[in-house]
Formats: sequence, C-alpha cells, structure tokens
Amino acid sequence: LILKELRQITIIGLGLLGASLALAVRRSMGGVRVVGWGHRGQTRVKAREQGLCDEVFEDIGQSVEGADLVIIASPIGTFEEIFEKIGGYLGNGTVVTDVGSTKVLPHKWAQKLPKTAHYIGSHPIAGSEQRGLEFARDDLFEKANCILTYGRKVDAGSLELLRYFWRELGCDVYEMGPARHDRLLANVSHLPHVAAAALVNASADEDLKMAGKGFMDTSRIASGPANIWTDIVTTNPENICKGIDRLVGELNKMKAAILKKDAKRIGSLLEKARAKRSKMIEFKLNKKEILS
Amino acid sequence: LILKELRQITIIGLGLLGASLALAVRRSMGGVRVVGWGHRGQTRVKAREQGLCDEVFEDIGQSVEGADLVIIASPIGTFEEIFEKIGGYLGNGTVVTDVGSTKVLPHKWAQKLPKTAHYIGSHPIAGSEQRGLEFARDDLFEKANCILTYGRKVDAGSLELLRYFWRELGCDVYEMGPARHDRLLANVSHLPHVAAAALVNASADEDLKMAGKGFMDTSRIASGPANIWTDIVTTNPENICKGIDRLVGELNKMKAAILKKDAKRIGSLLEKARAKRSKMIEFKLNKKEILS
Repeated sequence: LILKELRQITIIGLGLLGASLALAVRRSMGGVRVVGWGHRGQTRVKAREQGLCDEVFEDIGQSVEGADLVIIASPIGTFEEIFEKIGGYLGNGTVVTDVGSTKVLPHKWAQKLPKTAHYIGSHPIAGSEQRGLEFARDDLFEKANCILTYGRKVDAGSLELLRYFWRELGCDVYEMGPARHDRLLANVSHLPHVAAAALVNASADEDLKMAGKGFMDTSRIASGPANIWTDIVTTNPENICKGIDRLVGELNKMKAAILKKDAKRIGSLLEKARAKRSKMIEFKLNKKEILS
Repeated sequence: LILKELRQITIIGLGLLGASLALAVRRSMGGVRVVGWGHRGQTRVKAREQGLCDEVFEDIGQSVEGADLVIIASPIGTFEEIFEKIGGYLGNGTVVTDVGSTKVLPHKWAQKLPKTAHYIGSHPIAGSEQRGLEFARDDLFEKANCILTYGRKVDAGSLELLRYFWRELGCDVYEMGPARHDRLLANVSHLPHVAAAALVNASADEDLKMAGKGFMDTSRIASGPANIWTDIVTTNPENICKGIDRLVGELNKMKAAILKKDAKRIGSLLEKARAKRSKMIEFKLNKKEILS
C-alpha cells in the first residue's frame, strides 16, 4: 500500500548523505523515481555522469514537483531558505523531511511550508568524516539508528511512510520530540565532535606526528566538514554548552585526583568510564547494531 | 653480528603487549630463545598451552637468567619491584628495557639495577583497548613508532641492539630523553585517554544507547584497562594536568564563541582542528604508517 504511494522521491543536496540516499533508494526500492537537486554545478554534472538519480535539476522548485517525499540533505543553515523556495511547488500531501543533526530549529522553520505539506524530521545517525558524493555508499544507512521527530500534531500517514522508508533502508527507527532529540544528540554526537576538535587544537603539529591509533580514533570526527558542523553547533547552542560544562567538570575531577595523588580515585574514574562504555558496546552487540 | 649476540629474550609479563612481543619475536627472529614470566598462574598455564614461549617460569629471577635482553611488559606500577627482584640474576652486559607508556620514573627506578646491566627505555606506540594474551597478535608492532629513551650516558652497544630489535619487528625508531618522551606522550596518548574517559562519564547510560560510530570511535580508548591507565596517569601527573588545562581552555574557547553566537569563530575553531588533523593524516600517509 505504502510502496504504491511512493512514486517519486526528491533529494535536495547531493553530498555524502544525499548521494548515499539516492543509491540506497535505488537499491532497496525499485520503481521509485529518484530526483535530485544540487547547489553546485559541478555536483550536478558528477551526479548526472554517474547516473545517481533519474533526473537532476538546477531549479529547486522543479525538482520537488511531483514528489511524494522530499528529503533535504543539505547543511542545516540552508533549510529555512529551502523551505521558502520549495513551498509553492509541493503537491497536496507531500511529505517533507530532512537528515539534519539538529531538529528544534528545522521544525520552527518548517512552519513556513504550506499546510497541505507534512513535515516530520528525520535523523539517520550515519555518515562519516568524509564529504561529497564521491564517498557515497548504498549501505550507509544499514544498521543505523534513525530518529523521527514530531510534535503533538502529526499526520499519521506521513509518519507511517517515513517509518517504512527508513526501515526499508535498514534503519532502526526511534521517535521523539525535537527538543528531546537535540538534547540527546548534543550528548552523543555534538559534544564528542567539539571535544575531538578541542583535543586536536590542544596539541602542537609537531607532537601529532607521533600520534598513534588511539589519538587518530579519538580525533577522527574532527575531520568532518567545518561548515556542516558550524551549522550543527549554532543550531543547538544551549545543549552543547551544557555538555561542555559537564565534560569540563569531569576533566577537572580527574585533575583534582591527580593533584591529590589519589590513585584510588583516578582508578575509579577510569573504571567507571570503562564499565559504562562496555555496557554501551554490549547493548549494541545484543541489538546486532555492531558486530563483535 | 647483533643477531648472533641475541640468543635469549626474556619477557616479563604476558598480557596483550608481552604475548604479542613473544609472537612477533618468534616470527621475525628464528633461533632466538623466548622465555616468559607471568604474574598469574592462569596466564602461565595459557602461555604454556599455546606454546607462546620456549619456556615460562613462575620464578622471576630464574626467568631472566641467561637473557641477553629482558623486556618488562607489566604495568608500570610493578617496575620498581621487578628491577629489585631481577637485579641479582642478570648476566654481565644484559640489556634491560620495558614497554611502559611513561619513562621518567622507570629511568629513576632502573638506577637500582646492577651497574653491569644496561637499561634503556622503549615505548612501542602500539596496543589496543583489549587486554590479555588472548588478544595477542604477531603484527602488533608493524608500522608502529617506537621511542627509545636514555639520558646522557648510554651504552652504545645496547642502544644498537634495541634499535635493531624494534626495527626487526617493524617499528620506526625514534630517540629522546625520558622527560621529553613523557611530555610528548601526555599530549598524544595520555590526555586523549583522560578525555575519552571524561566524555563517557559526562553522558548518561540511557543516552549512550543512541551513540553512533562517531561516539564509539571517540571513546574507544576509554575501554582500556583501568589499572594500567591508572599507573600511566600517576607516573606522568604534571604533563597530564597541563594537558587537561589546555583542553579545558580549548573547550571554553568554543563555549565562549557559542554564547556570543559567533558562527565565524565557531567555524574557525572547527576548521583549525580539521586542517591540523588533515596535516597529521597526510604526514602518516606519506610515511606509509597508515594506508589511505
């Protein structure tokens, strides 16, 4: 039933996430027409050369015409303008979603969409520190968690469609309000990013030459595109600042224990972290989200 | 010439590093007798069952008798006692080294060794968050950097032997004084560990269930054994505290930029980290230390 309703998907933005979406839809949902829009001419040329979509448009309005589902996969800072630009071209009942990493502001901006369109936020927790359609993978969303966000009023059919859509791409779907999403993601994603960047900036280039696998993994996400992460940080400021305060608090607990030469306390802080992470890994192994 | 002089290597401690050393020596240096000592009876039984060494001793004095090279691969907190215990059993000219992650205190403790033995510190920057000989790998030291530490007086022949030894296992060998080593490693290894543990402790268990690959990588090293890391932290306190101060300083720079809603400043901090890490990765790719 739902599959039949999904005849055209338009993907706005053909970077790593948008292009991976196009590949994943083509792999999992044969018969669905995939339309793309890219901001840069070079991206549109590459997308056409690779046959990433059935059609790639330069005009964003044209790209959403006839779409049953529009997925915005561009940096969050562009959403408000995109909602304004596409509003007049959306068909009656079109479902609009995005793959942005913060949700409170996108929900606010989405109020500018016509009442006949249904906006629900999506956040597939997938990606990498790489950018651009060159790194797109059709299995990027497999085993990923995807959070759908909506408020008290939500269109039941649109919600059903999005649940179906993300599950079809291999995601485990969770649902919550945008405020809870932004608080949660600040803790598990935005704060780690800010911490990784701070760790790199706290070290001299000369020292980094001797970094081992530990440092490389701990800092990997700091290689993510600065513009995309700037949008994430600026659209989730309070939660990230609270996270920084908590992290600084933990670092200072360790410093206090070191200054007191309190080996027992140092050990208990390290063991607490080890045990917590071990519990997290066990949970994900049981869920088969990761493999041992 | 040097190979001929190396007839017996004794490895004190058969955890992940010690057992990997035994495997690596057997793979790369046929004909060298590998003797092991393990603190726990269970470890000795497993080592014997797996044929990890030519011989495994319960008595630490016996284990170093006849050794040309003794490598201490137990937690740093045990070094002082081990130096005291093995001193009387070392042959004339025996080279003693260790694989510990801090070096200033081991050098101080090594002064208790007889004058006829030659101590030089080794730090192969390799390992994982796992522990125990079950996880031993004969290629653990391939492409790793190994730092040799010594002061103004060093026995030239012993230094030559250790350079040869670590290169034979696939390491890139660097040399410096113990104080410089401890400052450098605080920055690229001990601070990241403390930061990863603090990041895990700053998050609620419930939130961690939604953590993605970014969080898992950023926090991976926090799964390392708490006892080993407690020894590292307590033997390098000043450098780690300075590192914590620098990291907290960087985190607070970001917080200040967020509070001022200064997107340009946020972007420049993130871009600085991205560019620094990219330079580090490029350096390691050129050196073939990592693969693209």
